[in-house]
Amino acid sequence: MATILIKHIRTLVQASQTPLGVVAGARMGGLPVVEDAFLLIEDEQISAFGSMNEAPNEADSVIDATGRMVFPCWCDSHTHLVFAGSREGEFVDRIRGLTYEEIARRGGGILNSARRLNDTPEEVLLEQALQRLREVQRYGTGAIEIKSGYGLSVEGELKMLRVIRELKKHSKMAIKATFLGAHALPPAYRENREGYLQLIESEMLPAIEAEGLADYIDVFCEKNFFSPQETERLILAGLKHGLKAKIHTNQFNCMGGIETSVRHGAISVDHLEVLNEAEIECLLSGNTIPTLLPGAPFFLNDHYPPARRMIEAGLPVALATDYNPGSSPSGKMAFAITLACVKMRMTPEEAINAATINGAAAMELQHSHGSIEQGKAANFFLTKPIPSLAYLPYAFGSDLIDQVFIGGALVA
Amino acid sequence: MATILIKHIRTLVQASQTPLGVVAGARMGGLPVVEDAFLLIEDEQISAFGSMNEAPNEADSVIDATGRMVFPCWCDSHTHLVFAGSREGEFVDRIRGLTYEEIARRGGGILNSARRLNDTPEEVLLEQALQRLREVQRYGTGAIEIKSGYGLSVEGELKMLRVIRELKKHSKMAIKATFLGAHALPPAYRENREGYLQLIESEMLPAIEAEGLADYIDVFCEKNFFSPQETERLILAGLKHGLKAKIHTNQFNCMGGIETSVRHGAISVDHLEVLNEAEIECLLSGNTIPTLLPGAPFFLNDHYPPARRMIEAGLPVALATDYNPGSSPSGKMAFAITLACVKMRMTPEEAINAATINGAAAMELQHSHGSIEQGKAANFFLTKPIPSLAYLPYAFGSDLIDQVFIGGALVA
Repeated sequence: MATILIKHIRTLVQASQTPLGVVAGARMGGLPVVEDAFLLIEDEQISAFGSMNEAPNEADSVIDATGRMVFPCWCDSHTHLVFAGSREGEFVDRIRGLTYEEIARRGGGILNSARRLNDTPEEVLLEQALQRLREVQRYGTGAIEIKSGYGLSVEGELKMLRVIRELKKHSKMAIKATFLGAHALPPAYRENREGYLQLIESEMLPAIEAEGLADYIDVFCEKNFFSPQETERLILAGLKHGLKAKIHTNQFNCMGGIETSVRHGAISVDHLEVLNEAEIECLLSGNTIPTLLPGAPFFLNDHYPPARRMIEAGLPVALATDYNPGSSPSGKMAFAITLACVKMRMTPEEAINAATINGAAAMELQHSHGSIEQGKAANFFLTKPIPSLAYLPYAFGSDLIDQVFIGGALVA
Repeated sequence: MATILIKHIRTLVQASQTPLGVVAGARMGGLPVVEDAFLLIEDEQISAFGSMNEAPNEADSVIDATGRMVFPCWCDSHTHLVFAGSREGEFVDRIRGLTYEEIARRGGGILNSARRLNDTPEEVLLEQALQRLREVQRYGTGAIEIKSGYGLSVEGELKMLRVIRELKKHSKMAIKATFLGAHALPPAYRENREGYLQLIESEMLPAIEAEGLADYIDVFCEKNFFSPQETERLILAGLKHGLKAKIHTNQFNCMGGIETSVRHGAISVDHLEVLNEAEIECLLSGNTIPTLLPGAPFFLNDHYPPARRMIEAGLPVALATDYNPGSSPSGKMAFAITLACVKMRMTPEEAINAATINGAAAMELQHSHGSIEQGKAANFFLTKPIPSLAYLPYAFGSDLIDQVFIGGALVA
């Protein structure tokens, strides 16, 4: 058994521990840490940690972390990391004054990505996605959810999900796959919504189940995309094929997506840039994790989710990047944390819990990832020397994450 | 003479050339580039560039830049990079709901930095500043202005300016020093404004001139700081000692700082988060360069300068980071460019001109820095492979700057 001892860690951030593995409300402000700590790794797992004066004397390899902090790796529970090419042309169109709707009418947006994705061979998609996965790994991400949704055809959706399956073979990161066939209505079905819903139900889902390609089902519940009724229908269809729900909702409008998702036990509802009091009450009544994606409002419209209100109401909050080529072309979790603090007034402790243990819970990985705990995956990173926890979100332009370990192996 | 040949550059960004070396209005949208280019360096200077089919056959060393772009280094014309310690504690205070004013009343803000600076030995300041200088160099900055202003005492201000002088010995970057004694009224002079103004005039400025420590004078022209009348008095005092003016103004209020600065031929006016039409007219009548610092509104209040209106009126615009521990704790120019595009609707071309040639002009370095031109300093960087110019601001979380050359030498 190979052991690694990290010693003299200035501050070991453990992240919060609760029986349910998700931290809510006022508890989000507490972030357990060990000062002057050690961390012992055996093979791919954390085998012990604690105060330096209890550190073991030896290990196969020893790393001196004097002055540095150690964090559990980020758990990014919402990304669209498999896509065919960037969309900076649309970004420039928006600068020049086109609206998101005008860009969509010109063939931009999700349908632009879908067209390109269907034209791109699986091996090219894999190569591009692998580069992105390696990039976010360097930025400290150790567990990630990746969605389909740029296929919008049986072949395209299966191709994306197969790329995600291949990614798992190339990385020790924990990877969860979400089927997002209902990301947008493909042009061929513009006059036939029912036909597309049936295609999802009768062709896509059975094929996905047969190959075991997905863990979750997602629906973009939003005006001009899918209604709460359609969302409900697809959540139920997913459950029939063994897929729990993680739902895009409340990005631009409150339409009932949260109530539908909570009622059917969705794992998470994601975005929530708009959110009313009844929806907060609804979330409090269930176990669905509200997941905030501040990269999208940063890039689009500065309309951020009401994180303070949610936490003060007693909710848990998870943070993710929404990495995608249209509305959030970045997979850097540290910047999502900066946005959480600067734009949503989350404290650094709240943001770190949201980006680790609560992100893990939004992928049902809270018992194996998202905190420093004996028996959990040895996914953690060492920072450069920094003066405090709060320095991480504060120094918003600096690259402070130094050495990243995934499954006990140094990857960056 | 040592020569370096960079060949097969996918896109060589030259940055705009004008007789005055500053690019204004609609011309900011044009950014000369050479596709499939070479760049030849002789010692510390650019000796030639152009299309690959005109490239020389040999050089002492050759770098193949296939797929990469080459940019002139950023020219960051407004920073407070010399300071004693970070201020993330106040950042957390703001998250918890304290206002900037309450934090100042508790001894925070500029006076917090001043207290710490006066308590910190020169060699410690130098070591910290040098680390920051090396960091921004890695991010592609090749010319920089650094201000005093955390001393607010004769000894403290001279100490800061001497640290800046030492920095010049440690780096090939072009460094300009600005005396900002009038950054805030020190507590000892709270009942004696006149006394502090006289201290600046009769002790600080003569000592600075005697040691040749500064290139410019700056004043924080703002409510609760210094009035336009005091600003005018200090601009004139600076001129008497050979220092041209670069003025902090219009961060929170329109009070006349722009008119005063333009009338006295200031090199630049910086911030301009608030700006009225008369002030735009005033700027059009002079040669003072409006310099925008989007890092501060990103970190504070989302109230960005009206860059679009300024450019459409025909003004030049420069971009800088405002790197400082209170309101903009980042020296990453690429992020200032992202903010310029995302938040101020500048096109990528406008933002790049603003961050290179116009930034150089805001330090009077436009004839030696800020663009790829024969005889200019060989300060440039190679990107990682990127698909387009616009990808740089678009991919806001990615580290795309790869190899940085300053004075012809690879520094990162």
